[in-house]
Amino acid sequence: MKKILILGAGLSTNILIDYLLKNAVEYDWHITLADINEEVAKQKVNGHERGTAIAFDSEDELKLTSNVSENDVVISMLPAFMHRKIAEKCIEYKKPMLTASYASDEIKELNEKAKQAGIPIYMELGLDPGIDHMSAMKVINRVKEAGDELTSFYSFTGGLVAPEYDNNPWNYKFTWNPRNVVMAGNGVSQFIRNGRYKYIPYHRLFDRVLTRKILQYGDFEVYANRDSLKYRGIYDLKDIPSMYRGTIRRPGFAKAWNVFVRLGMTEDNYTLENSENMTYRQFLNAFLRYEPEVPAEIKLRDYCPNASDPVVMEKLKWLGIFDERKIGLKNATPAQILQKLLEEKWSMDPDDKDMIVMQHEFKYKTNGIEKMIVSAMAVIGKDQTETAMAITVGLPLAIATKLLLIGEIDHNGIVLPTEKEMYEPILDELESFGITFEESEYLVG
Amino acid sequence: MKKILILGAGLSTNILIDYLLKNAVEYDWHITLADINEEVAKQKVNGHERGTAIAFDSEDELKLTSNVSENDVVISMLPAFMHRKIAEKCIEYKKPMLTASYASDEIKELNEKAKQAGIPIYMELGLDPGIDHMSAMKVINRVKEAGDELTSFYSFTGGLVAPEYDNNPWNYKFTWNPRNVVMAGNGVSQFIRNGRYKYIPYHRLFDRVLTRKILQYGDFEVYANRDSLKYRGIYDLKDIPSMYRGTIRRPGFAKAWNVFVRLGMTEDNYTLENSENMTYRQFLNAFLRYEPEVPAEIKLRDYCPNASDPVVMEKLKWLGIFDERKIGLKNATPAQILQKLLEEKWSMDPDDKDMIVMQHEFKYKTNGIEKMIVSAMAVIGKDQTETAMAITVGLPLAIATKLLLIGEIDHNGIVLPTEKEMYEPILDELESFGITFEESEYLVG
Repeated sequence: MKKILILGAGLSTNILIDYLLKNAVEYDWHITLADINEEVAKQKVNGHERGTAIAFDSEDELKLTSNVSENDVVISMLPAFMHRKIAEKCIEYKKPMLTASYASDEIKELNEKAKQAGIPIYMELGLDPGIDHMSAMKVINRVKEAGDELTSFYSFTGGLVAPEYDNNPWNYKFTWNPRNVVMAGNGVSQFIRNGRYKYIPYHRLFDRVLTRKILQYGDFEVYANRDSLKYRGIYDLKDIPSMYRGTIRRPGFAKAWNVFVRLGMTEDNYTLENSENMTYRQFLNAFLRYEPEVPAEIKLRDYCPNASDPVVMEKLKWLGIFDERKIGLKNATPAQILQKLLEEKWSMDPDDKDMIVMQHEFKYKTNGIEKMIVSAMAVIGKDQTETAMAITVGLPLAIATKLLLIGEIDHNGIVLPTEKEMYEPILDELESFGITFEESEYLVG
Repeated sequence: MKKILILGAGLSTNILIDYLLKNAVEYDWHITLADINEEVAKQKVNGHERGTAIAFDSEDELKLTSNVSENDVVISMLPAFMHRKIAEKCIEYKKPMLTASYASDEIKELNEKAKQAGIPIYMELGLDPGIDHMSAMKVINRVKEAGDELTSFYSFTGGLVAPEYDNNPWNYKFTWNPRNVVMAGNGVSQFIRNGRYKYIPYHRLFDRVLTRKILQYGDFEVYANRDSLKYRGIYDLKDIPSMYRGTIRRPGFAKAWNVFVRLGMTEDNYTLENSENMTYRQFLNAFLRYEPEVPAEIKLRDYCPNASDPVVMEKLKWLGIFDERKIGLKNATPAQILQKLLEEKWSMDPDDKDMIVMQHEFKYKTNGIEKMIVSAMAVIGKDQTETAMAITVGLPLAIATKLLLIGEIDHNGIVLPTEKEMYEPILDELESFGITFEESEYLVG
């Protein structure tokens, strides 16, 4: 019997646990689900004969040691900053580890140690990062194997509310960590187009969107992710002239969001004086010029020209930034106040479903002709437990765990799912769950 | 005989050393000038019977110990980040210390230890911080002593090129640390006006200037400093409804500088790919949209509307940001590249003189009437050695050292020059050097 330890039983683990428990008898697995809240873990194991729920505090060194040493493989669903500690323990006890998180520099430093211990640390096995790598590499390798030359790779992903439940002026709800959404793009965004490097400072990011139609889901817009350049290395496309990665929203989002950025409301490195007793209208006024005899709405239009668009103004009014309502947050940063307001308005209703949309655009030269492949995928959640996010993050991680335990994959060190022996079986099995990429091909020009 | 140790013999120490050597015989002092470059120290001591020049490396713990322990008072002119180490040594050997630098949080942590050791650490004894505190407190205390109520305090300082040598389109040259000028304002700027807190994010700072005429020197503009709010505590004006501090430039500077900010050229937290072989024109293009068939000048006007002002465009062209000239800086950040370009253009000619301008604006209520006091000062440098900056930074520090050694002031712990017993004698003596504040008073409204 193989023993699997899952650390963390948060929302995104539902499908992962489900998959592993469903396959536990056939493959002779036992799953231990560890969470700081034992009750949450118990509910998710739900009395399954192959599952055990335990209370777990990552600060408890002794318990971490005993849990890691007693299991055969460790899946960490803990917040990313905790992975390093878990990885060090896995190396010490020579246990393979898997996560859906980015391979941070801190994790990459452990590459040699993991190799010496002879164990793999599989990172980026979720949706983005995860399915994006696998589905991209599938096309990239096919083009390369045909002897053709890739000239451009654009790739976009977004977590949105499903069309049927898309009923607010922003066409957006929180389907994932709200803080990450508020802070998105903070830092410079770098990409390359036809050999020219491009740098967009954060305060201009939402000025510079692309627009796309994706599958049957209509119109979207895309803003650039922070570091598209590093993917040239990850995808072995060192000399590709164009490389761009972006985040998908519905059209009009960026133009309105940009008002918050231009005001300074997404900043997170200082706190506002007396934020607790401030109203949202005073919060807004704190970023506008001192003109107490002019309504904030009019000052805003003057200071952020985007707000003079009535479609933008409707979004802002709907959120309540002009309201004389108390914020009630002590010593809050602008970003924290904005997040509080958004969480009241952008939260999912109990019956809402989420949606994941991903699109890759490859250009390549074949026999002197330039062609373009568009590969797109959309997943709609089933309910608030089986969300599209939980499905697309949990399934590839679960399948990779299976492949590892049945000996189909075998690595040492830090590994991303960019090799054929990983992405092929994972993508194949994802198809059986309805996660499929639809391809179309065009002549360029 | 009292022995004075000066650590660091940089440009801003010329006047300080001069003053102390000139007074050394009368007061029976010996001055040891320590610099990493012994030759520089020797030149400045210039064989004076009361002076010794020594080589000094702040990394040399033993030498630091012997130097501090053998002297009676220590003046640190080293870069600010080194002060903590010096201060700890001064506390250990119970030697008073003086600097012209900000009392950082790191230094303030030593307050209790300095008190226990029974020694003063005088900080902020230069121009800004320094003369600004002294000249402000003089008026603030006068108003308070008359039983009147201060309602507003605005204060501006700038280091500029003297009018006669002000001969470039920016009306600006580097008279101080170029890096600080390039990075100025990076972070949020906070102030309060009529009880309303105002926050300006960095990317909007240069949109929001004040304009002023100062003394006989014509028109200036002012942009907000980062933290004006903390001065309510420093000046004991906790409940003052308006408090604003700013930096002075000549009119038009901010409108043109804002183009660099809006492009992202002042960012310093990432490096550009292949910066060494890039031209300045390519550097500019890296921040503009991808439109290789459109001239950078035209793209820039579209992307940064300020650049469509011919006065702004003249400034940009004069700097050479459109030039096809190689940058030649390896792995450089945008701010480093911009600084290199500016240093070629904004450097002082050998005969140029600098200028310091400072203006305070106090409003107060007396017998139900609101009045305003404007207190302004300007100093023009004598040459490139006796710069206005060296005079205004060095003299108050030198005078404070004298006051300490003759027993006119006596403190424990971290001390700023905000008490009458300090600012009065210092301001009085500064007047004898021609550093005078000119006051005018108005009725408000």
